[in-house]
Amino acid sequence: MKLWDKGISIDKKIEKFTVGNDREIDIHIAKYDVQASLAHAKMLQKVGLISEEELSQAIKGLSALQGQIEAGTFVIESHFEDVHSKIEFELTKSYGAVGKKIHTARSRNDQVLVALHLYYKDHLQQIKTQTATFFETLINLADQHQEKLLPGYTHLQVAMPSSFGLWFSAYAELLIDDVYLLNAALQTVDQNPLGSAAGYGSSFPIDRDFTTQELGFASLKYNVVAAQMSRGKSERTVAAALGSLCNTLARFAMDICLYTSQNFGFISFPDALTTGSSIMPHKKNPDVFELIRGKSNKIQALQTEMILITNNLPSGYHRDYQLLKEHMVIAIEEVKELLDIFNFAIQQVIVNEVNPMDEKYKYLFTVDNINNLMLSGMPFRDAYKEIGAKVEAGTYEPDITKKHSHIGSIHNLYLAQIKEKFPN
Amino acid sequence: MKLWDKGISIDKKIEKFTVGNDREIDIHIAKYDVQASLAHAKMLQKVGLISEEELSQAIKGLSALQGQIEAGTFVIESHFEDVHSKIEFELTKSYGAVGKKIHTARSRNDQVLVALHLYYKDHLQQIKTQTATFFETLINLADQHQEKLLPGYTHLQVAMPSSFGLWFSAYAELLIDDVYLLNAALQTVDQNPLGSAAGYGSSFPIDRDFTTQELGFASLKYNVVAAQMSRGKSERTVAAALGSLCNTLARFAMDICLYTSQNFGFISFPDALTTGSSIMPHKKNPDVFELIRGKSNKIQALQTEMILITNNLPSGYHRDYQLLKEHMVIAIEEVKELLDIFNFAIQQVIVNEVNPMDEKYKYLFTVDNINNLMLSGMPFRDAYKEIGAKVEAGTYEPDITKKHSHIGSIHNLYLAQIKEKFPN
Amino acid sequence: MKLWDKGISIDKKIEKFTVGNDREIDIHIAKYDVQASLAHAKMLQKVGLISEEELSQAIKGLSALQGQIEAGTFVIESHFEDVHSKIEFELTKSYGAVGKKIHTARSRNDQVLVALHLYYKDHLQQIKTQTATFFETLINLADQHQEKLLPGYTHLQVAMPSSFGLWFSAYAELLIDDVYLLNAALQTVDQNPLGSAAGYGSSFPIDRDFTTQELGFASLKYNVVAAQMSRGKSERTVAAALGSLCNTLARFAMDICLYTSQNFGFISFPDALTTGSSIMPHKKNPDVFELIRGKSNKIQALQTEMILITNNLPSGYHRDYQLLKEHMVIAIEEVKELLDIFNFAIQQVIVNEVNPMDEKYKYLFTVDNINNLMLSGMPFRDAYKEIGAKVEAGTYEPDITKKHSHIGSIHNLYLAQIKEKFPN
Amino acid sequence: MKLWDKGISIDKKIEKFTVGNDREIDIHIAKYDVQASLAHAKMLQKVGLISEEELSQAIKGLSALQGQIEAGTFVIESHFEDVHSKIEFELTKSYGAVGKKIHTARSRNDQVLVALHLYYKDHLQQIKTQTATFFETLINLADQHQEKLLPGYTHLQVAMPSSFGLWFSAYAELLIDDVYLLNAALQTVDQNPLGSAAGYGSSFPIDRDFTTQELGFASLKYNVVAAQMSRGKSERTVAAALGSLCNTLARFAMDICLYTSQNFGFISFPDALTTGSSIMPHKKNPDVFELIRGKSNKIQALQTEMILITNNLPSGYHRDYQLLKEHMVIAIEEVKELLDIFNFAIQQVIVNEVNPMDEKYKYLFTVDNINNLMLSGMPFRDAYKEIGAKVEAGTYEPDITKKHSHIGSIHNLYLAQIKEKFPN
Repeated sequence: MKLWDKGISIDKKIEKFTVGNDREIDIHIAKYDVQASLAHAKMLQKVGLISEEELSQAIKGLSALQGQIEAGTFVIESHFEDVHSKIEFELTKSYGAVGKKIHTARSRNDQVLVALHLYYKDHLQQIKTQTATFFETLINLADQHQEKLLPGYTHLQVAMPSSFGLWFSAYAELLIDDVYLLNAALQTVDQNPLGSAAGYGSSFPIDRDFTTQELGFASLKYNVVAAQMSRGKSERTVAAALGSLCNTLARFAMDICLYTSQNFGFISFPDALTTGSSIMPHKKNPDVFELIRGKSNKIQALQTEMILITNNLPSGYHRDYQLLKEHMVIAIEEVKELLDIFNFAIQQVIVNEVNPMDEKYKYLFTVDNINNLMLSGMPFRDAYKEIGAKVEAGTYEPDITKKHSHIGSIHNLYLAQIKEKFPN
Repeated sequence: MKLWDKGISIDKKIEKFTVGNDREIDIHIAKYDVQASLAHAKMLQKVGLISEEELSQAIKGLSALQGQIEAGTFVIESHFEDVHSKIEFELTKSYGAVGKKIHTARSRNDQVLVALHLYYKDHLQQIKTQTATFFETLINLADQHQEKLLPGYTHLQVAMPSSFGLWFSAYAELLIDDVYLLNAALQTVDQNPLGSAAGYGSSFPIDRDFTTQELGFASLKYNVVAAQMSRGKSERTVAAALGSLCNTLARFAMDICLYTSQNFGFISFPDALTTGSSIMPHKKNPDVFELIRGKSNKIQALQTEMILITNNLPSGYHRDYQLLKEHMVIAIEEVKELLDIFNFAIQQVIVNEVNPMDEKYKYLFTVDNINNLMLSGMPFRDAYKEIGAKVEAGTYEPDITKKHSHIGSIHNLYLAQIKEKFPN
Repeated sequence: MKLWDKGISIDKKIEKFTVGNDREIDIHIAKYDVQASLAHAKMLQKVGLISEEELSQAIKGLSALQGQIEAGTFVIESHFEDVHSKIEFELTKSYGAVGKKIHTARSRNDQVLVALHLYYKDHLQQIKTQTATFFETLINLADQHQEKLLPGYTHLQVAMPSSFGLWFSAYAELLIDDVYLLNAALQTVDQNPLGSAAGYGSSFPIDRDFTTQELGFASLKYNVVAAQMSRGKSERTVAAALGSLCNTLARFAMDICLYTSQNFGFISFPDALTTGSSIMPHKKNPDVFELIRGKSNKIQALQTEMILITNNLPSGYHRDYQLLKEHMVIAIEEVKELLDIFNFAIQQVIVNEVNPMDEKYKYLFTVDNINNLMLSGMPFRDAYKEIGAKVEAGTYEPDITKKHSHIGSIHNLYLAQIKEKFPN
Repeated sequence: MKLWDKGISIDKKIEKFTVGNDREIDIHIAKYDVQASLAHAKMLQKVGLISEEELSQAIKGLSALQGQIEAGTFVIESHFEDVHSKIEFELTKSYGAVGKKIHTARSRNDQVLVALHLYYKDHLQQIKTQTATFFETLINLADQHQEKLLPGYTHLQVAMPSSFGLWFSAYAELLIDDVYLLNAALQTVDQNPLGSAAGYGSSFPIDRDFTTQELGFASLKYNVVAAQMSRGKSERTVAAALGSLCNTLARFAMDICLYTSQNFGFISFPDALTTGSSIMPHKKNPDVFELIRGKSNKIQALQTEMILITNNLPSGYHRDYQLLKEHMVIAIEEVKELLDIFNFAIQQVIVNEVNPMDEKYKYLFTVDNINNLMLSGMPFRDAYKEIGAKVEAGTYEPDITKKHSHIGSIHNLYLAQIKEKFPN
């Protein structure tokens, strides 16, 4: 069943191909489509295009469907092309004409567009909340382990002293940059596109200010052509924001995988968080963090997909846009799971003690030794050479007592200020 | 149920996260896993690691499963982690010890690796066959419409005469380049990786030449570390080949969408191949070609995903590799559908006549006019200026009688030679 | 000459390879490196690490170099590894010890990091200003041509009436979304990273609040590990923002190339803006817009490059990061040129008149006809069928008098409100 | 100076923008453009479009230019648009009319196309030769260090015994897969496109078989539209092949960076191959391998750029294609340097001894212990449990005497067969 059926039979093979897997993805969108249809119906009544009674029928019908969606009993049967056909059908079945009438001054493209904006907005807000929770977790871990030595590497070579406090709160502070992008993505989708119809607006006197307010959008995407062209462009921006967040998650997971290796051994996890091997009985593998890394990396590729689907297409709707939502919706669901799992798992981290006098690690302190010489008056280049000579000769002794006091350094993490910087 | 279960209970949330959607994807792989297990069992018997009776049980059990798979009745229930656990369970249920024994000298990674190589090889061959069919279709269309004028554009500006013969056979000939890449991908996956175990081989005296022959691989991936590292690398190569093919499909579909626009009107399609609009009664949209374009473009992004998942990972297996197969398998199934639909749809193309004396199109012939002047002795720059002056003055008259005779030009398409170039 | 020279000779071939083309790119960075060195020197004096006299020498030396940079006479000779070595050398040559001393509590990585932050911030602001200018141009064009008919397409098929007013202001409004991302990128780089030294801070009592204020940063990247890890992450974000802007430019350029084709002919440009063909005297090609499109598309790939260089690298500096700046700096310079050229060229657009009674275009008005029937009481599905039947029968007559009045539609562009939405 | 100059002055700003940096890149192409012009001239004489005397002048002039190019004295002055304008100018200056006449039946696009095909072919062959050299180096290193223990990791956890022999020859064997793709790329570019003119062929009776033979192409790209459309498509394929090779280089370099870390310490390099730190006197950083990794990763992004520039462009030349060559040529030059440097540097590797009784590494042998139990009759699951229990209890003792004998395993590297598999 298709909204645009004109009585010409379309090839079955072609029909299956064009419908694709819309039904599965549309389950995620259904709630928002009903919400937008409700606002649209109210607006139609307000401007006189449907009667009060018709509105009241539409409200009853749509509320019933919203109830089914919330209860998880809403199903898009296989003879419906998509969620929009299904909803129109149900309304018409129950209340007759009004089911078709709420389609007035809209097109399917318009419906998809506003439902996706609402979906993205809602889920970006959830992701932001989850990011804030994960941020708190990391700040707490930084606070709890702040005095514990972690060797700092450059070029993967032992370099200078770091700490678990610095490590955990570094990832926390990087999340702030991700939230800047999430906020930009939110601004992008928090503009009401409803009313663009097929992309060129309508000759009906619709009230777009009313639906904007009704749907809680911060503003309007005024120009109807711009509203339509935001398909693909919004996805690109949301994918960039998710990708940025996933970049932080992936790199953190990489550190964790490396630090749980026997060659580092800086951290470990309880058995319940590790997985075994089908042939090696000694293995306790950090699969959960590898999958966080892998899934986060996969999501970083999403933006390329969004660009490739829309790139170089002239203005105006193209059916290609139907393909944008599938991987976007899946990625959004995955990001929520990634944040949930990561936040759950990282709290169980076991931080091991690192011996600063270990032969491998004692060179961490050469810069502190040099700085000591400099504070007693020796020029840098001379101090650098003196300590360098000791290292070469094997007579170097580390000074592990030095405190780093400046803002954001080992012994002055500035956690309160980092927390304060977390954006609304 | 997991192959590596050691009696330690793993967190439920974590378990769900790590298993992911393997079961759904593994249905595609099942046939090849059974095939490889059969070859492995025969080899184990040959080198004395299982008895003749055990082999006979394994053959019976695996053949029964293969029967279920072919009949479409094979199901991986939700308490199995993946297809490998399921198969081991079924064999053990029916025949006891041998179910576990055929795991000798293998690891799950080894099983996935060989099953995917077999899957890729089989499907790349299918795709190559479909590409050959599509190629034939295009050559036939070129032959059929070879004398019909198609305006040739450069910079999207009317440029020089082309023909439908040139257009159809251009895309045919471009498919040859795609087959070069498909063949390279086939060479890559046509190497037996079985025997790499967890990526470092086995201390059992397995016979890898035997399984290579049994499975019909052209050669061995000898080095077991290389075999393991081909995960991700093979996917990257297969994705590059699919992407190349999809690039041809996408560009062809773009031409079709443009040429069916009223502003070009060079071709059209029967109603059964077009779709309507929910609000515009005059519309006959080329959705099928837009979806071919969009899906083809989406698949061109796949390679970036494959690279991002594996990039900068040190040698040795990582759980991240589990994520490679999902989108690869989906993409392969999609490419097969795309070729099928495109081949079906393009045969129904209606080629319209273009009037060479149309004001828009008459300048197509300026170069032919210039060449005529040159063949009568005028230097190029003078001829170019003379015709240019006529165009400026509005006195230009096209010479539409000129025949292009050289290899690969309008009136000498060389279709037989293009057909001959199509690679085995 | 290298800052870290320890007297061991490095292989010449290796040296050439590791230095790469830093010198060419560093010319763009030089100004910001001097600025940061000046702030750092003042801070060193403030906390007692250099004397007032030394500071005064540093100021004189650095100001002289800044003068050279502004005058375009600053050169990084080929025996210097990079701009930082060059500046240290010049200072030391003129003032002795202080040249080396201003390196106290810094590392080269620290210098690059802060200089790049300053560079990105400055140039993102310029790009934002240029975007605002381009936005104004488009709003003005929309105002000027608002009543002129432009056929609106969906699926590249003639669909509904649009206008040049809608078209120009659609791209203007889309630029607003790009500015949201530019602002997020600005927030990301407007955090002072100076003081992270080699990525783990310093044991010297440096004053990071002082340098933050001195350099005009809005805030600090507090955590020194986070500061260091922002390499690659900042580039990724800046590339996402540039890519978003370029996406708008590329699609606009695509429309322009299509609309200048003889098959559309909606717009044209003066000869001085078009280029000719070496063999076709009638050609006036829109190369400038094709190059805008191509360059914009190229820049959209930049983010993938930034991700691939840094992906899966564990925390801590890696030399790979040196490779981030080259294409970022080139892309930033290109985006500035693209905005400049586009803004210059689009103002010369010639808008042609489109005849609404042209057979091709009259179906643009079917939805308006349907809506008229509905406003006189006919249900949508009946009206849709009536007009559809007329189209099929060839008896359809367009109603071209209908006014679209809702917000953001053809006859109510809401330009003032779009202008107001442009972000600070 | 432009080939298509028609006496209309083009805006200076626009001109600078459209020319771009063609001149710098064209220096790499010059040699091949002259070569193709020579073949074209000979063909023109053969078919009677120029005289013998004119051909003799063209040969003299082009040979002189080829001499300059080989001697490195050829310069494209800034008043020439590109190499093609320069060559035409020089010929005309020396020999008059013939300089212009050799442009007969060609367009600039045709010239660029054939020159790039020749350039790609030549350089892909060089890269293949260098890959073969690098392959030999790795096989030799594998042979030399074949008995030396290298811990094998899965999930970055100590897993099973590997060896330096396995490690070096794994990367060697992976290069074979890269050569399959290089060969596919070579097939793609080894087709003569000359004669496509502006993309639609010529009405002159040119002899494309003659130029194919003269230029040493394996075959013709027959269809002139296909020849033209190979711009972008060829680049995509070449980039895929380079990216595949770079993937191998990057992953190998990642292993090297990790294994030189003090936490692994499996290998090291002489001081002349490492670089120091400006503040840490103990550092010997593997910058050369980090830059190999970073540059290789950067080149893996190139394919996305090639796709984005050409994606969704309708058939026929677009000026966007001019942008394809810049990064392709730079990447090709970089790949040659990467192979040269890597081959040079890896030969200086110092392989350190790993103690198998080290607490970290002894679990490498659990699978060997299990296999021993199985070979003495114990079922796998029981053996797995027995060894697992010993690991848990801390009573496990490794069996380090076990030999792995199957094809491609530690003690049977099959180097001769791997060498034999290296493709022509």
